[in-house]
Amino acid sequence: MKGKYYDISMEIAPDMAVYKNREELRPKINTYLNHSAKGVQQSAACLDLHTGTHIDMPLHIIANGADSTDFGVDSVCGPCRVIEIPDDIEKITEEVLKTKRIWAGEILLLKTKNSFSDGFSDDFAYLAASGAVYLAGEGARAVGTDGLGIERAQEGHPTHKILLGHGIPVIEGLRLADVPEGDYELLCLPLRIAGVEALPARAVLYPLKENQPKYKKTTCR
Amino acid sequence: MKGKYYDISMEIAPDMAVYKNREELRPKINTYLNHSAKGVQQSAACLDLHTGTHIDMPLHIIANGADSTDFGVDSVCGPCRVIEIPDDIEKITEEVLKTKRIWAGEILLLKTKNSFSDGFSDDFAYLAASGAVYLAGEGARAVGTDGLGIERAQEGHPTHKILLGHGIPVIEGLRLADVPEGDYELLCLPLRIAGVEALPARAVLYPLKENQPKYKKTTCR
Repeated sequence: MKGKYYDISMEIAPDMAVYKNREELRPKINTYLNHSAKGVQQSAACLDLHTGTHIDMPLHIIANGADSTDFGVDSVCGPCRVIEIPDDIEKITEEVLKTKRIWAGEILLLKTKNSFSDGFSDDFAYLAASGAVYLAGEGARAVGTDGLGIERAQEGHPTHKILLGHGIPVIEGLRLADVPEGDYELLCLPLRIAGVEALPARAVLYPLKENQPKYKKTTCR
Repeated sequence: MKGKYYDISMEIAPDMAVYKNREELRPKINTYLNHSAKGVQQSAACLDLHTGTHIDMPLHIIANGADSTDFGVDSVCGPCRVIEIPDDIEKITEEVLKTKRIWAGEILLLKTKNSFSDGFSDDFAYLAASGAVYLAGEGARAVGTDGLGIERAQEGHPTHKILLGHGIPVIEGLRLADVPEGDYELLCLPLRIAGVEALPARAVLYPLKENQPKYKKTTCR
């Protein structure tokens, strides 16, 4: 915990973990003015939009899906719950999620073994299509994961299609190692880039204030 | 207002306003995978770190000043006040600010004529060194402006040096045209890029909740 909050964002740096360890996905930072020559420092960064902590828009996976232009941050700011998935579970299915009680309107952050590795591993834990169907059916408001992808090796990207097709934002690349399972206030703000399929974001968790409502404990059905 | 909040961030796009209209500062977005060829869309962006809405770190102007690595978002999230500066004032001095009552611990956002122009103009309104001394003396927690720079044509960048030297974050490139003067809750989250002199950020204003404290109405002196 840093001061009053947990910083659950990945630090962006040239040596950070990137999807499938592809070199071309590494961020590049160019400091083009410095103090010794110019009396100021000024830099630019080239970032894949799926670098570190980021939010996928429907357009990422759905042809003609919504892009970032009208993305509203209300869907990723508010009361949320961190759910711990045991280390030996790589495939998060409906059965796994049913052991937790999901309420309509919840923002759910999945804490898995991924949070405990600084690098990228091909066997990262992911949300299976059945888990996505379950969360959409229960009325999840947004879903976050500590993997750089929310699914892996699923032909046709069904997990993305189910969540994004239901208007459920997908936050990837969270860092939850220090965060105990439980209820928090999530602040997640992406850059306001127009017309793209994903937005790099900063995400922090604040403890709930006393008497602050967690979420509406109602079901969709 | 968008839903429940004001989005006070500049939209990042290739044709956006950039400092002194320098072409090399324009963001570049490269969509390198698309649906027709690959069934997904994937893009990268090259951004000057001072693009649009961003937060300056001390290292921007102060040699060996603090960089972004340990920047805490608490200093730019919380109760804040939007202050309207009349359109005919380009130079915001101590005298101008004394007409407002500044309290210790306030986050102050300066709304000027800059908010009403989509382009960059050389005669943008700015905070003069005397205004920075005044705000630092009164104990401001952070200072934001709707200019792409918080000062202009001041030899040695005194406004930056005074504010950043007092540990007061400087938020540049806000968009306040739609926001009436008054008290709000500011959420401003920059990307978590390590080791740099500025951080692109998203900033939104929520109305204060009923009975929410605005800020501690105390003075530093």
